[in-house]
Amino acid sequence: MKTLIKNVHVLTMDEHRQEYKNGYLLIEDERIIAVGAMPESLPAAEKVIDGAGGILLPGFVNTHTHCGMIPFRSLGDDVPDRLRRFLFPLENAYMTKDLVKASSAYAIAEMLLSGVTSFCDMYYFEDEVAEVCHAMQVRAVVGETIIDMPTCDSPNTQASLAYCEKLLQKWQQHPLIKPAIAPHAPNTNKIADLQAIVALSQKYQAPITMHVAEMDYEMTEFAEKYQQTPLAFLADLGYLDCEFILAHGIHLTQADIELLAAAKGQVSVAHCIAANTKSAKGVAPVKELVAQGITVGLGTDGPSSGNTLDLFTQMRMVVNFHKTKNHDRALFPAKEIVAMATTNGAKALGFKDVGSLEVGKKADLVLVETQSVNMFPIYDAYSALVYSANASNVAAVWVNGQQLVKNKELVHENLTDLRATLYQKMDKFVAAARQQ
Amino acid sequence: MKTLIKNVHVLTMDEHRQEYKNGYLLIEDERIIAVGAMPESLPAAEKVIDGAGGILLPGFVNTHTHCGMIPFRSLGDDVPDRLRRFLFPLENAYMTKDLVKASSAYAIAEMLLSGVTSFCDMYYFEDEVAEVCHAMQVRAVVGETIIDMPTCDSPNTQASLAYCEKLLQKWQQHPLIKPAIAPHAPNTNKIADLQAIVALSQKYQAPITMHVAEMDYEMTEFAEKYQQTPLAFLADLGYLDCEFILAHGIHLTQADIELLAAAKGQVSVAHCIAANTKSAKGVAPVKELVAQGITVGLGTDGPSSGNTLDLFTQMRMVVNFHKTKNHDRALFPAKEIVAMATTNGAKALGFKDVGSLEVGKKADLVLVETQSVNMFPIYDAYSALVYSANASNVAAVWVNGQQLVKNKELVHENLTDLRATLYQKMDKFVAAARQQ
Repeated sequence: MKTLIKNVHVLTMDEHRQEYKNGYLLIEDERIIAVGAMPESLPAAEKVIDGAGGILLPGFVNTHTHCGMIPFRSLGDDVPDRLRRFLFPLENAYMTKDLVKASSAYAIAEMLLSGVTSFCDMYYFEDEVAEVCHAMQVRAVVGETIIDMPTCDSPNTQASLAYCEKLLQKWQQHPLIKPAIAPHAPNTNKIADLQAIVALSQKYQAPITMHVAEMDYEMTEFAEKYQQTPLAFLADLGYLDCEFILAHGIHLTQADIELLAAAKGQVSVAHCIAANTKSAKGVAPVKELVAQGITVGLGTDGPSSGNTLDLFTQMRMVVNFHKTKNHDRALFPAKEIVAMATTNGAKALGFKDVGSLEVGKKADLVLVETQSVNMFPIYDAYSALVYSANASNVAAVWVNGQQLVKNKELVHENLTDLRATLYQKMDKFVAAARQQ
Repeated sequence: MKTLIKNVHVLTMDEHRQEYKNGYLLIEDERIIAVGAMPESLPAAEKVIDGAGGILLPGFVNTHTHCGMIPFRSLGDDVPDRLRRFLFPLENAYMTKDLVKASSAYAIAEMLLSGVTSFCDMYYFEDEVAEVCHAMQVRAVVGETIIDMPTCDSPNTQASLAYCEKLLQKWQQHPLIKPAIAPHAPNTNKIADLQAIVALSQKYQAPITMHVAEMDYEMTEFAEKYQQTPLAFLADLGYLDCEFILAHGIHLTQADIELLAAAKGQVSVAHCIAANTKSAKGVAPVKELVAQGITVGLGTDGPSSGNTLDLFTQMRMVVNFHKTKNHDRALFPAKEIVAMATTNGAKALGFKDVGSLEVGKKADLVLVETQSVNMFPIYDAYSALVYSANASNVAAVWVNGQQLVKNKELVHENLTDLRATLYQKMDKFVAAARQQ
């Protein structure tokens, strides 16, 4: 089965950032088999899509989110310490397997509609999340949270670790899904559990994803207790010898960055600018990370913290915050920001077969239309994506060669049904949330 | 002629921020004649619109833009000193009356589609801009730029001032349009011209709008030449005795803020966060301005500087930048941000008849749908507007009682035609821009 996409401005995001202003791309089964400038005679294909001058690029990669948390969106946005005031109590009392499942389906639908083709999730009941990913045919890292308190899916960390090991065993051979271990944060786990997590990662060659250097009190606590940064502490435990996706990293020091640069494992940072600045936590040292060659992808964080799950919001925030922080308009031109949101994100999650539009790669791609009022004129397609576009400009999306969004709608799901199901599963949660 | 809008979550943005979660609003001719909770029996009306649970609020007010600059969008976004490298040369050589007209029609269409019902424009050929506003029936302040160099519409400032005086005479009685004088900046005008502008403002009771304290070199130049800030300099010339809409104000000092607070005239600040931070210029002291009771509205700046013309982008940027700058998550809760984008903006532009949904006010309003994937769940409608929504959620718009957007499309214009006309008028400009 071949699909031809023609009349598109192709941003390959390959190593040379090759573009084809009037280009085409050919998919066979799950792979890209041709890409280039429009030839005089186009190859034959069962399905032909006219991109009408839209921008075709690799799918966006959301390197940090919590799909189960749609029920929290717009709750207590401007309230300090909502983690302890809203999140933990509501999660522990009202988050069920069915609610995580319904929320994840909704979140994945939302991501697909905004051009996100793969993501890294961190939450509870991750076996359910993996099942939803499998059913919806998206690419994902699914990380089961380990935290030193009773949670909605486990009475203690022993149970969490056992749940997680089963997750790793069950999903490790899946073509689209990478199971992972997700210790919540350095300051919310016991040392023994943090050690057990490294052992688990090594046993299954599974990635670890974790909130690190996110909180100012986390930094203070480690300075006082261990005279170390959380990152240095984790490095001593062997985290940097693993595949390690570090989320936030707001308070990483220069010494931390050097540790990351010297890591033996495949280490990357999920930069969540919109969530980090909405909560007034600060701006991660991305210029310094990139200068040391560390892979930085973009993350939305959960719908509770970041509200939207699209990477357009993130791209615009990243560029404005880092230019301003560094007093340098020329820093991070749009092309580099699009790279962070696509090819660097894929690298961050260890998805080696995607992240650029090249022959032989798996076909994870997004078509952004340029007919809407905000998308004219376009001198520079990267600029248009970063500074002008929003999620509603996403016209079509393919994951692993399968078209999942067409004419701005889901191909296989009905959004109204997904919402109705989620709404029904949310009733007790909502009643409690309104009381908080 | 009466229009009834029912089944809406009404955010009146009145002094008490009254909300009606299940509400209605009734328009007769250009005014709101009823608003409140859904009654058992609804009033009769020729036209009935079911808002389907959407959010109804006062139209967004864009307090600073340059409608004529659509042709520049996505050109040289990440290049330092683009004002002198791209803007001035291209404007002087290729900006024509017809191009300003076509660009303004397109920009107004874009604003309407994103819920902007009134704005403050500053550019050249403003008589054309006013004609377009009149034809498209939007509310606007139209300010003719005065700058100490030959421009696309005037060989010198004498000619600009004469053009501007004609503009003031012609439009001063218009129900929707307020003509204004727009000196470019303190450092790009001669003192004699700056004095003539105050005299003109006083003669016609016309507002002045101006870029102030935007550039670091502007601050240095005034410190060296006058041992004053630009704002103190303007205060001495009488600007703060006029109706004065100050754009940017990034480098306003505490002493400047006190001068603004003590002003005899109606003084306001147009805060353009997305443009200011994209260009790495900095973050205006909005917390301090608001603390002194100064009216702060939001502005997109021109499509060249800010790229998008909607206030959703601005609201999200404002809240994230100011929370982070002040290390305070609770600062500027969503309700205050929505107020800046609507009622405070209307106050900033001196449009006393609009800015809130109250009986007797002119009907400038916007309906934001909540069916799209990003708009669920909603515990707090203000939060949903600030943190979740984007321009594509705007379903319907009324200005002065007239519906101008319906089902996300323009009622009286065809967007394809507006784009085609603009594209045709842009040919020489584009050819030259591609050479820069």
